[in-house]
Formats: sequence, C-alpha cells, structure tokens
Amino acid sequence: MATSGVLRQLMYTAHGPPLSALAMRSGTIPTPGASEVLVKFLASPINPSDINQVEGVYPKSPSLPAVGGNEGLAEVVQVGRDCATDLKEGDRVIPRWSCLGTWTSHLASDAGNFIKLPGDVDPLQAATLSVNPCTAYRMLHDFCQLQPGDYVVQNGATSAVGQAAIQLAKVFGWKTINIVRKRPEDQAKGDAEMRAHLQELGADHIVYDDELMEPDTRALFKETRPRLALNCVGGKPLSTLCKVMPQHGTVVTYGGMSKKPIMLPTAALIFQDLHFHGFWMTRWNDTTDLAERQRMLDTLLDLIRSGQLATRVQTHALENWEEAITQATAPYKLDKHVLVF
Amino acid sequence: MATSGVLRQLMYTAHGPPLSALAMRSGTIPTPGASEVLVKFLASPINPSDINQVEGVYPKSPSLPAVGGNEGLAEVVQVGRDCATDLKEGDRVIPRWSCLGTWTSHLASDAGNFIKLPGDVDPLQAATLSVNPCTAYRMLHDFCQLQPGDYVVQNGATSAVGQAAIQLAKVFGWKTINIVRKRPEDQAKGDAEMRAHLQELGADHIVYDDELMEPDTRALFKETRPRLALNCVGGKPLSTLCKVMPQHGTVVTYGGMSKKPIMLPTAALIFQDLHFHGFWMTRWNDTTDLAERQRMLDTLLDLIRSGQLATRVQTHALENWEEAITQATAPYKLDKHVLVF
Repeated sequence: MATSGVLRQLMYTAHGPPLSALAMRSGTIPTPGASEVLVKFLASPINPSDINQVEGVYPKSPSLPAVGGNEGLAEVVQVGRDCATDLKEGDRVIPRWSCLGTWTSHLASDAGNFIKLPGDVDPLQAATLSVNPCTAYRMLHDFCQLQPGDYVVQNGATSAVGQAAIQLAKVFGWKTINIVRKRPEDQAKGDAEMRAHLQELGADHIVYDDELMEPDTRALFKETRPRLALNCVGGKPLSTLCKVMPQHGTVVTYGGMSKKPIMLPTAALIFQDLHFHGFWMTRWNDTTDLAERQRMLDTLLDLIRSGQLATRVQTHALENWEEAITQATAPYKLDKHVLVF
Repeated sequence: MATSGVLRQLMYTAHGPPLSALAMRSGTIPTPGASEVLVKFLASPINPSDINQVEGVYPKSPSLPAVGGNEGLAEVVQVGRDCATDLKEGDRVIPRWSCLGTWTSHLASDAGNFIKLPGDVDPLQAATLSVNPCTAYRMLHDFCQLQPGDYVVQNGATSAVGQAAIQLAKVFGWKTINIVRKRPEDQAKGDAEMRAHLQELGADHIVYDDELMEPDTRALFKETRPRLALNCVGGKPLSTLCKVMPQHGTVVTYGGMSKKPIMLPTAALIFQDLHFHGFWMTRWNDTTDLAERQRMLDTLLDLIRSGQLATRVQTHALENWEEAITQATAPYKLDKHVLVF
C-alpha cells in the first residue's frame, strides 16, 4: 500500500527546556525496510519522563537528534516484504520499548518493536495505557501481597499513576488514602473539583499533605494501618508520611516531584521496619517476559472496556504542541495531555 | 541447693549518660519462685543497644528501676519447685528475650526466659553469641540469596557485627569489602593493627571511608558488584556508598553510628534499583519460632568450636564497670568488652 501525506514529527537536536529544545519537522513518510512495518500514530501522550528526556535528565534516552515521546497508539499502514510478523495493515499497536519516538505521524521500525492491541478499545485509552496504568498495576502487585480490605496510601494522588492506582485498588479490593497538595486559596475552586473527581474514581480518603501530622490523619493511619505507600514526591512530605506509617510498611518510589532527596531516619528502617524500593516501568518492560506483560495488558484492557479504568484525557493537535507541553507540565492538573495526528 | 554469697548488679533508676546513671547495688540473692530458675551470670557483654537503653533512646527498654544489659551467659544454680523445665543445676543458659537485665551476678526468672546452651563452648564466646554474631548471620541470609563468590560490602567493619560478618561470609563462601574509618595521623599505628586483624579474620578488601569515590575503589566496586551492603553508619558515608553500589543492590541498616539520617536521591531507588531494609535482632527473636533460632545458634556454636568464628573479648570485673563502659564506648576499638562476675 502506498502511503500519501507528509511525515510530521516533534524533534530535538539538543537537550534543554522542551519549549525551546523541541521543533516541528516535516518530511517524507519513510518506506519500511524488508523486516519493518510502517505505522501511523493516532495518539501519543506527554508523560513526565518524556519531558525529562528532552531536558537531558533521564537515564535512558535516545541518541540525538531524536523524536520525542515514548508511548502512543499507532495503526499499521504497511508491512515490509520479508517481515516475519503476524501484524497486518489496520492492526493497532503500541511500542514494546521506550525511546522509539512517538511524537511523530509515522514510524518505520522492526515489527518486533511493537505489541499488537485489540481494535475495540477507545484509542485515547489505549494510547495512555502502557506507562501510567501499568506502573500503578505493578506497584500494587509486586512489592507486597495485599489482602482484601488492606489500605494503600499514595502521595501525588492526582497524577495519572495516582488516578489509575485509585481505580485499580478498588477493582482488586484494596482501599486508598490519597495525599494531595492543597491549592493556594485563590484557586480553592479547583480543590473541590479535584476532590469530587478522585472520589468518583473510588478514593476512600483524601488528605492534604500539610495535614499529615494532624490528629485526625494520625488516627486514620492508626486505624487503617496502610501496608503499602506509593511515593512520587520525596523530600520532606515523604519523611512526614513515613512518620505516620505503621510498622513493617513498604514504600515504593516511582517519582521525585519535589526534586528533593528522600531522608530516612535510621529508626524508620531498624525499629519501624519500613522497606524502601523503587519502581521503573522501563526496566520492568526491558527485563520481563512478553507473555507476562501481555497478561497485564489484557487485564487492563478488560477494565477499560468495562469502564472500571479510565484515564482523563485532553487532546491537542500535533501543531499545537507548545500549548500541549505547557499544559502537561502545569501543576494541579487532572488530565493527561495527548498529541493527536 | 542453698546459694551463698551476695547479689551484685549494675542498676539505673533514671535514664542518662551511663557513667552517671548507673550504680552498683548489693543485696540478697533471690530465691526462685515455684516456676522460676535462679541463674548465676558468668559473663555479660556491653553492647551499644545496652548503652542506648540506659540513655533512654532505645525503643524497647525495661521499666525503671532496671538492671542494665540484655545479653550474657549464666549457669543454673537452683530450679523452682514446680518448674516445668528440662533445665537443671549446672546447665548453661542465655536469655531468650531482651530486657531481662544481665549486668547482675544472679537472676531469678521464669524458666521459659532462658535458652539452654551446651557446656563445652568457651564461656566468653557463648556470652557474646546471641546479639552480634546472630545479627551478622541473619543479615547475610535473610535479605538476598547470595551465591558462592558474591561480594558483600559493609561499613563499620571493625564493629563486633562487622567482624562476625567477615568470618561468617568466609565460612559461607562470600567475599567482603570492608569500609573502616581512618584514624588521625598520630594514631596511625592502630590502623595497622586493625588491618592485620580484619585480614586475619578473612577480610578480602579493606577500604577507608574517605576513599570511596577514588578511582581504585570505584574500580573495585565495578569489578566485584557487591549485591548486599550492611550499614551501621548512615549519613553522608552511606550516601557515598550508595553512589558506588551497582544496580539492584540491597542495603540493610542495623545501626546509625553517625547519628545522621540516610539521604537517598530518588534515582537511587527508581533507576539504580537499590532496596533498603532495616534489621533488628530483638524483633527477629520476638517474632521467630524458637526452633529456627536454635538452628542458627547450633550452626554458630559449631563454628565457634572449630575456631572459624571468634569474638575478640576483653573482660572486666563487675566492680570495674566504669572502666568497662568507658572502653566499650570508645572509638576505634576492636574488642567486645565483657563484665565477668
């Protein structure tokens, strides 16, 4: 099949702040090599790690010049002549690895670099599935054996991972305490919207980060004794969270929004018996059997179909990438910002 | 059997610096209750946690007034009338739990509060077995499955736990990198003695803590890729150690000699995949089946008999307790200081 149209992609030739480092590039749509498939992207989200890659502060990055983005949903438009694959034209795929560059209208790459997705799932939900919901899924399953009714606490609960964790915990029978930042007083209206949204997702408790040491919150932790804490903030807020954690808890870090290191008093480890791990979806994908990943994706796709898992999405035409980046990096947002092609 | 002599014990009625808080007390040797045994202590070490208890900065402490000490070897001198125990006069025992108070010539307590030890083991080695060597044993076994030839790194390598870890690692086929503090220049002679002693125990590498970032040390870590780190220091020295640790390492904290918290960049958890746990022998003893503890003690007793495990001991008559405490809390020491009765 011949492909008409023009290749458009968001590229960077040097690391720096995304708005100045990135630029739109037009070109000719590539012809797939013999073992390659050519895909056309439908939707590609802007994740914090994508931003960090452009900034040059991420440990796994493509070599420069590079197309931005690591996640997205694409459609196969052409299959290479000698390509040993069951992919065919019209199939929907997501990248198997990071660093393929998804902020592009088209990509020709080895067939093995893609995972086939069923065609009956909302494209925006499929496009935002493989990073944030999968991160939430793994952190809830891989670090301690939660029992029905067990509590999980998380900071950064409004993040896309946080919202997915609320929904997944509910599906699997666990309850959540959700720590959020309080907005300045002049934005208090947003607070009400945020609370309503998290509650609709299934949040059992919502706590402002500056209220962690207050008697009500301490009583809540004492009563619910959360066994697992998900951390994307670090710094003092995490130190405070550790103070109210019960004995033997597990703390899994997947982000460091505060840009401050984690400070642990020795006693939190020895006497409180807290356990600290980190989670990185990229490493999990790079080191785990595809069949296990497929099982997780199938589970999550079923939850999307049944409406039990949904990412709140705001779309931007690729041409409006500057606005998309600006909104994706703004504080207090509830939406995942997605480029569409 | 009637017991002659006088009860002598080292007591504290209020928390404070050990030299001022502790005092010698004489009294009448107690008669054991019907379900109790009366034991006479032979030797009781001074451990850092004993000091912290007297200072009032330890999370598990006896109620005041209290006899100091948590570890020691005793001999059964009288068995209570209705005591359902296989202990008999002349048997050697160690405390099953902490907080019994071992800095005493005699103690009457429930038979279930003691564990019988064989009589053929050197009393000073038996007296110092249950805290430090057991801590080293558990940390080497319980946090990752080390393979033959694997490397373990530890700071505070001259501590009693550190010396036991060197010996046990050698027995079990693991190699050690041992981080030590360098003495001031005018004490450099002690350094040579320390190095010779650790090497005699089986230390594979000895590294000064201020040399961790030097090219030779970094090369050593790169080559040996230690999978397990034992930490009793914390603070900046641990942050530096984490920088040279390879990916996926496990860090077990059992002390905080620097009295500074552990500071971890988020990246050490997410991208370096370091895992942080704490170990507290008291909790392990309190929560573990006696049979499992017995298996560990039997293994360690065999190693003591064969000369593969030895604690370097310096004894002090109970009357000289002030000198004993002073030496036990001095820096750069290699000996465990033990009160004898």
